[in-house]
Amino acid sequence: MPQLSAEVFTRLPEPAAACRLAAAAAQAYGAPSPDHVVAAPGTQILLPLVAALVPPGRAAVLGPTYAEHVRAAALVGHSAREVTDIGYLKDVDLAIIVNPNNPDGRIVSKDLLLALADQQKHRGGLLVVDEAFMDVGPADASLAGEVARGNIVALRSFGKFFGLAGLRLGFALAASEIAAQLNASLGPWAVAGPAIAIGEAALADVSWADATRESLCRGAQRLDETLTSAGLKVVGGTSLFRLVRTPAASELFHRLGRAGILVRRFVEQPAWLRFGLPGSEDAWLRLRTALAAFP
Amino acid sequence: MPQLSAEVFTRLPEPAAACRLAAAAAQAYGAPSPDHVVAAPGTQILLPLVAALVPPGRAAVLGPTYAEHVRAAALVGHSAREVTDIGYLKDVDLAIIVNPNNPDGRIVSKDLLLALADQQKHRGGLLVVDEAFMDVGPADASLAGEVARGNIVALRSFGKFFGLAGLRLGFALAASEIAAQLNASLGPWAVAGPAIAIGEAALADVSWADATRESLCRGAQRLDETLTSAGLKVVGGTSLFRLVRTPAASELFHRLGRAGILVRRFVEQPAWLRFGLPGSEDAWLRLRTALAAFP
Repeated sequence: MPQLSAEVFTRLPEPAAACRLAAAAAQAYGAPSPDHVVAAPGTQILLPLVAALVPPGRAAVLGPTYAEHVRAAALVGHSAREVTDIGYLKDVDLAIIVNPNNPDGRIVSKDLLLALADQQKHRGGLLVVDEAFMDVGPADASLAGEVARGNIVALRSFGKFFGLAGLRLGFALAASEIAAQLNASLGPWAVAGPAIAIGEAALADVSWADATRESLCRGAQRLDETLTSAGLKVVGGTSLFRLVRTPAASELFHRLGRAGILVRRFVEQPAWLRFGLPGSEDAWLRLRTALAAFP
Repeated sequence: MPQLSAEVFTRLPEPAAACRLAAAAAQAYGAPSPDHVVAAPGTQILLPLVAALVPPGRAAVLGPTYAEHVRAAALVGHSAREVTDIGYLKDVDLAIIVNPNNPDGRIVSKDLLLALADQQKHRGGLLVVDEAFMDVGPADASLAGEVARGNIVALRSFGKFFGLAGLRLGFALAASEIAAQLNASLGPWAVAGPAIAIGEAALADVSWADATRESLCRGAQRLDETLTSAGLKVVGGTSLFRLVRTPAASELFHRLGRAGILVRRFVEQPAWLRFGLPGSEDAWLRLRTALAAFP
């Protein structure tokens, strides 16, 4: 993390600093230019604004996935639902795909996404691809470089990969007219001074990103080994989290919680548990110990 | 500024921390309870969300004032304009008053505001009072304690008074149902970890606030003396800025700019200049020197 000057806290962010952040994001994510970048205080706040880019109509989210997409689409007046077959997405006004998906890591190929965007375009629809975990996904599936086509919005989260979720920084990548519209909705100074300074520095640090990707990949392998040794079945995930399916999910959730280990569970998928990567050797030990005690 | 833990940057803000911030804001601003508080990454991002609380209709902003209010109201579909007579505000769907006003410091009394809100209520309208500078205004004109009436939203800026504009933190105070609606639009984690930590500590520091109010008041008196000595007429302002009216505004603007002193000018009011308080003895000296050289 760069040393922060007092001015990033005391002064309103300068337009020039926001421009440098957009340039760094365009470069890091592979968007055509800084004009295709919208910086926001986290992607979460963008969800209703992006959903409102098309008039209220039918929205479908490829599920099971992050529940906030359906909520945000409904909030701005869409009739929104989760579907499990990607085929349903081509007939809606707003199609949303998390890629790689959270929590199962499912990846939709770029070809399939572009074909979907083309079908949508004919009917005035919009394809939103939430690439929150694409920093550790297959880069060739990203639509960041394709947003100039006009009816695609790609969302990128800064905090997850960079381990700075509290900073609140996220991006929408879109055709320049769409980006301008989103920027107008956010108004000036949407991103805080510290987030601009840290974001610009971090996004430009390619060697840190490469090393982190490798380190996360090794961590994910180690987590798979740890879970498998305990008799659990890993059914998906990304390098930032792993998904386990077990009939004992509920019992395991509570046992881990008592050991101070927080895993994510899913109301609609009671056999699923999502494990994050332990953050220290102490945390690895706690996880192994808790799993060993499990019958 | 409190020492910031690494966790405010690395972790998603906890709901409990956001609740503590809302409680501190309710206490500091005099809102009925934390349920009447919406915390946001700056008040700017709230303007379109607040304007969208009423269906597209007629919006009027008491001017001349901060131009973003008209822009935000138009953005969400209102027919929006600035008016100079408060009487026009009673017949619109969305009435917006900056109180104390920026840049002239005009204050509208609480009685007048409440009468306006009552008239609005009969016709389903909303009164928005932007209290961005109320920290240095007459506290008895604030509507913070009246928002439970239901059709009033009061906006409070954190960064201006606390000198932390880069942090991006602002609040809407409103009836609890309206607050819940605005919170749903912002979604979870709208405010960054550092802003929550710093905001909670600063809002609770009543003695710092009192001392700062006194110090700003002395600074404003000193600025008036400095400007008056230079033959300029101070026509309004708050303790955070002073408004000068002079036929030489344009020439003075450029001369001060060459001396590194930034003052605000106004397209619609070419004889106005808004002066901020110099931030150091060096800056005071620069201002006196630049003004002395002015014919």
